[in-house]
Amino acid sequence: MIKVVAKNYFQEGKIDEGIALYNQLIEETIKEDGCIKYELYQDIKEPHILTMIEEWEDLTKLNAHEDSEHFIRIFPLLNELTEKDSEFHIYKRLS
Amino acid sequence: MIKVVAKNYFQEGKIDEGIALYNQLIEETIKEDGCIKYELYQDIKEPHILTMIEEWEDLTKLNAHEDSEHFIRIFPLLNELTEKDSEFHIYKRLS
Repeated sequence: MIKVVAKNYFQEGKIDEGIALYNQLIEETIKEDGCIKYELYQDIKEPHILTMIEEWEDLTKLNAHEDSEHFIRIFPLLNELTEKDSEFHIYKRLS
Repeated sequence: MIKVVAKNYFQEGKIDEGIALYNQLIEETIKEDGCIKYELYQDIKEPHILTMIEEWEDLTKLNAHEDSEHFIRIFPLLNELTEKDSEFHIYKRLS
């Protein structure tokens, strides 16, 4: 199992649009083979920070997700709404 | 439920010591009231990045954790091993 944390800083006024796009992405992604969890979170103090916390069976399934039609279509639209590049980490669990 | 993501960049050569300290902290923290998950992860490409991903019943329980004897004792020891300040976020789940 691998864990993904992808943090995005949205432009003020673009948060709701970002959430709507994420919801479209989630709806398609949770149907994918190898997707265990694909969840959207919002920072409680800084609501323009939206973070996906994900679980995938392995790196191969995550790579397939990044090649999916819905990811290739929606990810650039999300990027247009953010202040800066996404902070993206892939983790393995230690304990 | 709230989710916490706390990312730390450890100094080279200090990773194993950091993991050992986290394991001490985990052993005590999972006994705390209100702690649902308290898990240690390591970035697969940048192994000096160690990240705690946590779930707490609510903010009150998280605050009590930060006042606990073991947190007050171990957190400063972890900070001595890192390159820079921890990146700490408290999240609520949207979807």
